[in-house]
Amino acid sequence: MEESFVPFRGIKNDLRGRLMCYKQDWTGGFSAGISILAPVTYIFFASAIPVISFGEQLERDTDGILTAVQTLASTAICGVIHSIIGGQPLLILGVAEPTVIMYTFMFSFAKDRPDLGPKLFLAWTGWVCMWTAALLFFMAILGACSIINRFTRIAGELFGLLIAMLFMQQAVKGLVDEFRTPKRENKKSIEFIPSWRFGNGMFALVLSFGLLFTALRSRKARSWRYGSGWLRGFIADYGVPLMVLVWTGVSYIPSGSVPSGIPRRLYSPNPWSPGAYENWTVIKEMLDVPIVYIIGAFIPATMIAVLYYFDHSVASQLAQQKEFNLRKPPSFHYDLLLLGFMVILCGLIGIPPANGVIPQSPMHTKSLATLKHQLLRNRLVATARQSLRKNSSLGQLYGNMQEAYQQMQTPLIYQEHSARGLNELKESTVQLASSMGNIDAPVDESVFDIEKEIDDLLPVEVKEQRLSNLLQALMVGGCVAAMPFLRKIPTSVLWGYFAFMAIESLPGNQFWERILLLFTAPSRRYKVLEEYHATFIETVPFKTLAAFTIFQTTYLLICFGTTWIPIAGVLFPLMIMLLVPVRQYVLPKLFKGAHLQDLDAAEYEESPALPFNLGMEVESGVRGHFADDGEILDDMITRGRGEIRRVNSPKITSSTTTPARDPKDLHSPRFSEKAYSPRVSELKGDPSPRIDRRGPFSPRTGEARPSKLGEGSRNLVSK
Amino acid sequence: MEESFVPFRGIKNDLRGRLMCYKQDWTGGFSAGISILAPVTYIFFASAIPVISFGEQLERDTDGILTAVQTLASTAICGVIHSIIGGQPLLILGVAEPTVIMYTFMFSFAKDRPDLGPKLFLAWTGWVCMWTAALLFFMAILGACSIINRFTRIAGELFGLLIAMLFMQQAVKGLVDEFRTPKRENKKSIEFIPSWRFGNGMFALVLSFGLLFTALRSRKARSWRYGSGWLRGFIADYGVPLMVLVWTGVSYIPSGSVPSGIPRRLYSPNPWSPGAYENWTVIKEMLDVPIVYIIGAFIPATMIAVLYYFDHSVASQLAQQKEFNLRKPPSFHYDLLLLGFMVILCGLIGIPPANGVIPQSPMHTKSLATLKHQLLRNRLVATARQSLRKNSSLGQLYGNMQEAYQQMQTPLIYQEHSARGLNELKESTVQLASSMGNIDAPVDESVFDIEKEIDDLLPVEVKEQRLSNLLQALMVGGCVAAMPFLRKIPTSVLWGYFAFMAIESLPGNQFWERILLLFTAPSRRYKVLEEYHATFIETVPFKTLAAFTIFQTTYLLICFGTTWIPIAGVLFPLMIMLLVPVRQYVLPKLFKGAHLQDLDAAEYEESPALPFNLGMEVESGVRGHFADDGEILDDMITRGRGEIRRVNSPKITSSTTTPARDPKDLHSPRFSEKAYSPRVSELKGDPSPRIDRRGPFSPRTGEARPSKLGEGSRNLVSK
Repeated sequence: MEESFVPFRGIKNDLRGRLMCYKQDWTGGFSAGISILAPVTYIFFASAIPVISFGEQLERDTDGILTAVQTLASTAICGVIHSIIGGQPLLILGVAEPTVIMYTFMFSFAKDRPDLGPKLFLAWTGWVCMWTAALLFFMAILGACSIINRFTRIAGELFGLLIAMLFMQQAVKGLVDEFRTPKRENKKSIEFIPSWRFGNGMFALVLSFGLLFTALRSRKARSWRYGSGWLRGFIADYGVPLMVLVWTGVSYIPSGSVPSGIPRRLYSPNPWSPGAYENWTVIKEMLDVPIVYIIGAFIPATMIAVLYYFDHSVASQLAQQKEFNLRKPPSFHYDLLLLGFMVILCGLIGIPPANGVIPQSPMHTKSLATLKHQLLRNRLVATARQSLRKNSSLGQLYGNMQEAYQQMQTPLIYQEHSARGLNELKESTVQLASSMGNIDAPVDESVFDIEKEIDDLLPVEVKEQRLSNLLQALMVGGCVAAMPFLRKIPTSVLWGYFAFMAIESLPGNQFWERILLLFTAPSRRYKVLEEYHATFIETVPFKTLAAFTIFQTTYLLICFGTTWIPIAGVLFPLMIMLLVPVRQYVLPKLFKGAHLQDLDAAEYEESPALPFNLGMEVESGVRGHFADDGEILDDMITRGRGEIRRVNSPKITSSTTTPARDPKDLHSPRFSEKAYSPRVSELKGDPSPRIDRRGPFSPRTGEARPSKLGEGSRNLVSK
Repeated sequence: MEESFVPFRGIKNDLRGRLMCYKQDWTGGFSAGISILAPVTYIFFASAIPVISFGEQLERDTDGILTAVQTLASTAICGVIHSIIGGQPLLILGVAEPTVIMYTFMFSFAKDRPDLGPKLFLAWTGWVCMWTAALLFFMAILGACSIINRFTRIAGELFGLLIAMLFMQQAVKGLVDEFRTPKRENKKSIEFIPSWRFGNGMFALVLSFGLLFTALRSRKARSWRYGSGWLRGFIADYGVPLMVLVWTGVSYIPSGSVPSGIPRRLYSPNPWSPGAYENWTVIKEMLDVPIVYIIGAFIPATMIAVLYYFDHSVASQLAQQKEFNLRKPPSFHYDLLLLGFMVILCGLIGIPPANGVIPQSPMHTKSLATLKHQLLRNRLVATARQSLRKNSSLGQLYGNMQEAYQQMQTPLIYQEHSARGLNELKESTVQLASSMGNIDAPVDESVFDIEKEIDDLLPVEVKEQRLSNLLQALMVGGCVAAMPFLRKIPTSVLWGYFAFMAIESLPGNQFWERILLLFTAPSRRYKVLEEYHATFIETVPFKTLAAFTIFQTTYLLICFGTTWIPIAGVLFPLMIMLLVPVRQYVLPKLFKGAHLQDLDAAEYEESPALPFNLGMEVESGVRGHFADDGEILDDMITRGRGEIRRVNSPKITSSTTTPARDPKDLHSPRFSEKAYSPRVSELKGDPSPRIDRRGPFSPRTGEARPSKLGEGSRNLVSK
């Protein structure tokens, strides 16, 4: 996105781009069929649960003027609007912690003012929203978002980690509070005598850790060895919500002498209870607000505007990382504009506005990539099977598959993408054919292992559509009605879920990977090299890498610290914006340009192929094993080791043994290259190059692993 | 051991055999130096903790006549005696659950008899011990143990699994009781009001699961990526005891309003408290026992005798499995005889006798194998380094290493063993030399990677000595004095430890592996083939395997059921002895002889080498990865996948690429062989042979993995 500050240009471009694929946004969504529900449920929980507990927080802090009902309503309304007329449908909207903090501050300010007070609080926030919206319009029109590109990986990942820390902090705080007497309830009731509080706290520990472990495990269900493939898939897709249900069920096991208040559960009024509505008539009250406060509202408005500008854009950016190979255009300016309108709407009906949230937005994209992969492979497998039945030649076979693949491509202005995919499919066909002798000979499964070959062909693609976003928003709206059921969820399960979200957001974060690397024993560092790893691990000296990471960590802690400062707390986004100049002017003075580039690479730079080496050998096995485990999806889409493979070229079939064309091999050579340079061997903590045992065997790895991949991913759909 | 029932012959043979290596049993122990403490502590906890909780159980059931003090004393005394004058020093003695059950029954019988009663209870058990000893002598002299060989893998593993179930049952029961009011204490005290009981129970859950998870994790510490090698090694060696301390510490965190009785802790009188001694004067009371009871004592005596004969022998057998390549002779008959004397001693001083226990005994051997491996490699590495410094030729280098290796061999009648090791060391040298061109050229680390090569050379050996057994017995004795400290351990931590022991005893149990295989999804069964696996997985049709396993499982459940029958409960060993005729006469009628042989193989039958295949490829990677993880020890010594590799031949160096000589490859060919036979492909759930992609690459695997092994195990001692 080039930086242009010509008024309206950014918005125009966004609209043009998105309108072109608007229809497809819907058709694509519906074409996915029932399977769309997996990402939807996953995101729904990830989005609803925090919103609910933020609502609870707001309720305590605003003397019940704002409750989970309002936060849920806001999330649902904004979500629906954005999913329908928003620019980037991958972006998930929700009422975020900063908003909550902001509203808390505003309330504590308003309630003591005689001529404002709790009564006019919402009306006043209405004015704050007006100002905020005005500022957002301003920024959107002038194309402020075009500088979003300057928020490099450093800023994005630092922000991501900060959010993770806030979630984790929330989880810990929540658990600790389970041992205390909550403010709201009356101290007298039985469950608050010390003995029951102790019991409640311990029970909370059991429930939250139970949820955390089982949820983390269930995400890996595809790799389980036991149970049918269908069951494993189901658990992997719906395991997290499932676990929330399970542990809610567990929370009902203790009975008899245990008071009903244990464990503590969500507390929220029903939307139809008296008082839940009184704040839906804010508009007329807005005129009662004294003029001075209407003007004064500009001050908090600026903070919120900055906050939203940043949150919204970065969330959108993180949901569209290059590694996902998105085919549809972004839409930063227009989305910011739309956000302005939604802020006004929320202000008028007296609910806290929603904005783009992380980690939910990237989570959304990842889950859609998984979906797309499953759809693609099912389709191609079907096609291949068919042609095999008509025992057609390999040429025809691939011809048909190319056709099918092409049909599934989103027909867009971005034609060259799918065209490219097609071409490389052709290439690989040729290679395969040549490698197998005759392209016209009929093939059977013995030489052509369908699932395997196909998985080798599949690039990482994302099911870009609006349906999932719309559905999850509607489900969030449904929560308002489902309050009575939601109140059955123990708060401790919530805390467990917060911890889960924090942990889920770590893999793929290079900053996090680097922190881990600092704690890795020197004798073990070479292991990082044997797995997927970012370029910098090989190209940047460890000292530099450490210095850089320590700097970033210090910065992170400072940001985390600022969130504790009463009013200034909400300004932590400013701290992160400060990173832009820091990155542009300060860091280059401290670090070599090349190093910075690698440490701050927008995407994974893969290195050219070179002969096979030992590290590679093992990796191939390990990767294969991974794949075996049916982990290939999570493996392809959310790189556990901090890298998302750039597979914008379909992988070649295992029968062609040109390592160069297999992404999995691509970085290894670099490793072997380096293996004899002082640095890496120092990294490996052993000075002996083993070229003598490595050289001769290069061809092997080129092929064995992919064929494992095949087997692995076969299990993904194993019946 | 041939079956001879000539009186005393067995005992004579045992004595002759063991006397030859008696001196070495001690020198060998002391030569290990400080490092002997790792296995000692490990076994001490594994042996003391159950004994303590059995003591607690006895105390409840015998109205406090017998306490943990007595069980500890018995374990310590018998342990010391056995470690000094016992036959097989690998055997660990302890007061076992069956003994406890037996004593409970005898007490409930005695206490209601007017002319016996609690007062004469211990005196009467004295007589029971006399009879038991008599029967044991009888069996020992007539060589009853020589039929121990008929207790094949089926019986041994079934018994092992049964013990594991009993431990797990104990853990669960204990946890449930944490929610209840214990019998002993007075119901009035504060911590037994419902609210505190609830809190106590929940706290117990936290503590026991906390211990279980952390203990299991700490055993894998060597594979951790973080922390220095020294720390990782320390945690792996001492992690379990460490965790007991840690969680005991955690149990003291809640304070203030929480009553001191929460969490519940061990309850045992100090040995110096009044009453703890009153039962040390049994001998004189024995004469007061009415003659009828003296005679009647014969009945329980028979049960106990059977029980001990079986427990003692099987525990000893499991501690000497072929896979350990023990070099010193067994000693079944003599140990049974000695047990008789110890039973008399215990009877006279009124403490329940101790006998050989599982899983502690096999655990002991395993930990000693780990120790031996470390010692060997350290020594050889040192030697190799030295010769490299004198840059000697490869020939000299291996010469020196052979010398060092030879020096560390236990000089025994079993000479051929170490001779053999020596020869193969030579062979491998030759091969290496030839593979590297000139045997006389000076070598440096670049071509000779010390740690790696050496790990490839090292066979599985066990540090067979008496010191570790003696020390752990003394430490158990020390517990009697340390009662005040032991009482700080929460009972819930104990339950967690029980669960830990149950789980620790599973890996390596083929019966368990087969049960798991039954639950493995057909589409995933082939994965078992890619890992280490017993021969039967390839040679026995799945149907047969399933039928056999289901039969065995049913039998196991019946045995487990019998333990619940009040009096008959202690007779479950009879059930297992019944397996001998069943195995010999019934099973052959139901299953093919060949299949039975594979399913009931005394040791791992490795198959001849054949060209490399896909499964192998991955395995090599995975194994390498394993090794990487520094898991090589646990990997070599306790085969997670139910096999202990028979490495009685030193592995070849990675530079020689004759897969045949690398144990890791040995079974794979069989797999590839089978891969095209209907059975295994049915197992693999995919009909397509991939020979086209497999054939050409056999040499590769022969070497890459070992060289990974090297790196892996280097980290074991990485500084």
